Amino acid sequence: MESRVVSSDSSWEELVARKRTECREKIPTEWLLIKDLKDLPRRLIEYDLPRRSGLLSELELDITENYTATQLLAKLASGETSSLVVTTAFCKRAAIAQQVTSCLTETCFPQALERAQSLDDYLKREGKPMGPLHGLPVSLKDSFDVKGLQSTYGYVELLKHEPANRNAYLVELLLLLGAVLYVKTNVPQTLMSMDSDNNVFGRTLNPHKTSLTAGGSSGGEGALVAFRGSILGVGTDLGGSIRIPALCCGVYGFKPTTSRVPFGDPPPPGVMDGLPMVVTAAGPLGHSISDLKLFMQTVIDDGHAWKYDPSASAVPWNIPQDINLKNNGSLTIGVLSEDKHYPLHPPIKRALQDAVERLTRAGHKIVPIDNDTNEDLSLAYLTRLAFQYFTYAPHVDILAASGEPAVKSIATLWSGPSPMFSGPPPVDRGLDPFQKIQKLHEAKNKFRDAWHRIWVEQKLDAVIAPGAQSTAVGHDKYGWPPYTLVWNVLDYPACMIPFGKASKELDPTNMSTGDGPQPDYIPEEVDGAPCAIQVITPRFQDEKCLQIADVIDRTIQG
Amino acid sequence: MESRVVSSDSSWEELVARKRTECREKIPTEWLLIKDLKDLPRRLIEYDLPRRSGLLSELELDITENYTATQLLAKLASGETSSLVVTTAFCKRAAIAQQVTSCLTETCFPQALERAQSLDDYLKREGKPMGPLHGLPVSLKDSFDVKGLQSTYGYVELLKHEPANRNAYLVELLLLLGAVLYVKTNVPQTLMSMDSDNNVFGRTLNPHKTSLTAGGSSGGEGALVAFRGSILGVGTDLGGSIRIPALCCGVYGFKPTTSRVPFGDPPPPGVMDGLPMVVTAAGPLGHSISDLKLFMQTVIDDGHAWKYDPSASAVPWNIPQDINLKNNGSLTIGVLSEDKHYPLHPPIKRALQDAVERLTRAGHKIVPIDNDTNEDLSLAYLTRLAFQYFTYAPHVDILAASGEPAVKSIATLWSGPSPMFSGPPPVDRGLDPFQKIQKLHEAKNKFRDAWHRIWVEQKLDAVIAPGAQSTAVGHDKYGWPPYTLVWNVLDYPACMIPFGKASKELDPTNMSTGDGPQPDYIPEEVDGAPCAIQVITPRFQDEKCLQIADVIDRTIQG
Repeated sequence: MESRVVSSDSSWEELVARKRTECREKIPTEWLLIKDLKDLPRRLIEYDLPRRSGLLSELELDITENYTATQLLAKLASGETSSLVVTTAFCKRAAIAQQVTSCLTETCFPQALERAQSLDDYLKREGKPMGPLHGLPVSLKDSFDVKGLQSTYGYVELLKHEPANRNAYLVELLLLLGAVLYVKTNVPQTLMSMDSDNNVFGRTLNPHKTSLTAGGSSGGEGALVAFRGSILGVGTDLGGSIRIPALCCGVYGFKPTTSRVPFGDPPPPGVMDGLPMVVTAAGPLGHSISDLKLFMQTVIDDGHAWKYDPSASAVPWNIPQDINLKNNGSLTIGVLSEDKHYPLHPPIKRALQDAVERLTRAGHKIVPIDNDTNEDLSLAYLTRLAFQYFTYAPHVDILAASGEPAVKSIATLWSGPSPMFSGPPPVDRGLDPFQKIQKLHEAKNKFRDAWHRIWVEQKLDAVIAPGAQSTAVGHDKYGWPPYTLVWNVLDYPACMIPFGKASKELDPTNMSTGDGPQPDYIPEEVDGAPCAIQVITPRFQDEKCLQIADVIDRTIQG
Repeated sequence: MESRVVSSDSSWEELVARKRTECREKIPTEWLLIKDLKDLPRRLIEYDLPRRSGLLSELELDITENYTATQLLAKLASGETSSLVVTTAFCKRAAIAQQVTSCLTETCFPQALERAQSLDDYLKREGKPMGPLHGLPVSLKDSFDVKGLQSTYGYVELLKHEPANRNAYLVELLLLLGAVLYVKTNVPQTLMSMDSDNNVFGRTLNPHKTSLTAGGSSGGEGALVAFRGSILGVGTDLGGSIRIPALCCGVYGFKPTTSRVPFGDPPPPGVMDGLPMVVTAAGPLGHSISDLKLFMQTVIDDGHAWKYDPSASAVPWNIPQDINLKNNGSLTIGVLSEDKHYPLHPPIKRALQDAVERLTRAGHKIVPIDNDTNEDLSLAYLTRLAFQYFTYAPHVDILAASGEPAVKSIATLWSGPSPMFSGPPPVDRGLDPFQKIQKLHEAKNKFRDAWHRIWVEQKLDAVIAPGAQSTAVGHDKYGWPPYTLVWNVLDYPACMIPFGKASKELDPTNMSTGDGPQPDYIPEEVDGAPCAIQVITPRFQDEKCLQIADVIDRTIQG
């Protein structure tokens, strides 16, 4: 691809204008919505825009709407359908999604179609698929380097950089497995908010209701997958960045134990690497637990993730044997309690209660966890601790470099009330670096040990938790995500299962969360927003997490 | 047990004298060697002291000499022999070992016999063993807390501390699995040398030849296991501390990937926890690969190590399927090259060459690794980097607290020429803490990536390496251990296989290693010392490491 490097003395607005034009021009004219189809109702998914647009054939609607990734792969492997047909369908649908939700950053439709064609040729020539993901389009968060595409993370400053000259570890592996790459997806400025909004690519809208956030930081993935512009997407998660968009957009998302999915690439510019920190995990978003499993098993398989990423753990994907066999299939399931500092919005609370009732009826043992009253397990404490981890090291300001301003969600979240509204900082701010690292470590271990104790003493198989304090809310109001962040700090795998919808009829009363940074519940605002629950297991029990999530999903959705 | 706390205004010599008397008095009089049996030849193992001592019955000699741990466990589980008989035999043999090699720190013979009796009662009563390690005596390095015993690590200052009031995570797990604990074993002052010598417990001698070091830091374990005073011991390894004693004493030792065997207990006094560092792994020493496997599989099993230690990875012990099946059983084995800064002593070189020849003859593919010429893979560089890791953070001096002096090996190693004799420090010493941590991390990752690349490009199944630069040498001369340390920095599992002996006839010529801190080769000095090779696989491939070590062991020992 031609270089996109531009004169560095352009203003940041000029850089952005040029990039936007370039991105727009990469969408084929025949995939553009006609003008009056841009004047749309807020509930895009309900409105069924792809069908109404007339841009997709019946076959393309069928392919993008009626199958799991696993099913599509079977069709692709047998030659019942071609990668060119499948890829074209998802490219078109992603192009439509982009026009109405701004969910994409980079696109490479021509290259994707070319690759699809070559995979079709391969299948014909060799009589077998190229790999277990043969011919399947997979979407990627902007955080993954793809050779020939820019990786800007929505920073204006990084528009001055050359396109990536290598593939990220996971990208290399996905290509080897036979996947087709066609889009990268939008993120929040700095990656550190739940609104995927930045000065370069704009704001990703929630396709369930465009007045709501799509969540972040993998918000572009959430919106694209929900729109079925992707059958399987990959995000990253440091505090909920896969799971919050999954919740907000009503899709499935899985944050694995760190290092199981390759994400050990050199960090983006400005990130201090190697300091003790909460660590980011890469993982899938999709339309079913079976597709999340497919992703994990295929990427990890016999430990070969390590071959592509020296930081990945060479631990095979183990199918656990004991679930559903012991105790006649009755699981012992802990239930996270509401934290008084982060009171649950009524639709979220209702979803969790509903799930608990259905699980109880199905014969599972429910164990309430006293995380609100027991300080050692407190999510509010944990959020303060994580905030200290996020802020203790020197910070490189990439915004300042280009002169672009902070977008509203970032300004609100990081200049407004910090998580310290709930109590004192866990670690004395005045300590020297070595002491501070040591004290943060001790505090984290104490928290880890308390959770471990509960888990072992109560013989828990899994914990279920609210997906977040709230559903998707209006733009730039999301606040801190303690209900997802806790599992990052513990490095426990967590699966988000969409379950139910917010309803102004069922929960008609406003609820204020006080003067902190957290959003209030406004029934009219969030009516129709997806709800979700999380299923969690201990570190490195990813296989068990997805297996139990599958059991729970089938139990509660019935 | 009564408290051993003593007045803290005693001199350090008084504290030591009291401790030594106390330890001596805990050995039953009937297990003491008669006077003229203390006037012994240097080659204790060859001399067959236990038999000559007349202290062990024929049955006790048989039990301690002729079975693997796996075989003893079968006898114990079936009731063919009792735990009381087995435990008595190993207690007596350990007591003899202590009198001639100073390999022990703490003993608890009466408690061990009581536990053995209660396990025998359990078996009779319940008709089944208490757990997979039912009735088996297991020895432990002093680093593991055992309730009621002191954990002093050979520091005089820590003699002022109360006995441990809890068991270390691994200790708790071993007890639950049915093991019998009877001794803790000696270590070097500060744990940071290859001579297990300290002012409290004295110097552990090598039972193969008492004029040689037993290695360190798990030197007491090495000596005790070699003397067959233990059938299975547990050590810890930060740079070779399991493997160097295994090499020096001619036994098998395995350093797993960190976090697979529980060792996440709170650190001993004075250790700064939580700073980025090379991390210590716990693992077994024993008499066969099958016993090392037994330990790993039993401790880890279905991931239950995590239940006892929140820092342990809940990864099950996976039996790899593919070894010996692919390529008709032919493995691709990389061979570490000699580093010119750390030239191999002739007996070590001979052992490695001999192993390579036998593996070649058996049809395995041998791939030489150019770690000496390729700077990115250099062990000398790695040793400089590790030295920076060991010394970048503030140091708490526990020696100073009691006024005890540094023993000779510590004074020599840490005040003498550092590993920087081979080149410049990898990271600028003047950086601030955050920058230094970041630069150390980058340097470590660059090294990791280079090794990863070799591994993947050459499709290696395993690497074999010299066990160390030298065999056991005379006291206080061991120097730095680059050939073992490299696998700690990479966090690759590594198995030490005893193979051959130093021989002044076969290698009659002295070899000088120059003016650095490394020992010269003196044929007369090390004649008869055990040699060894290491077998290494990537991080988290512990199962494969032991499986390949088994194949290699059977191939070369034949």
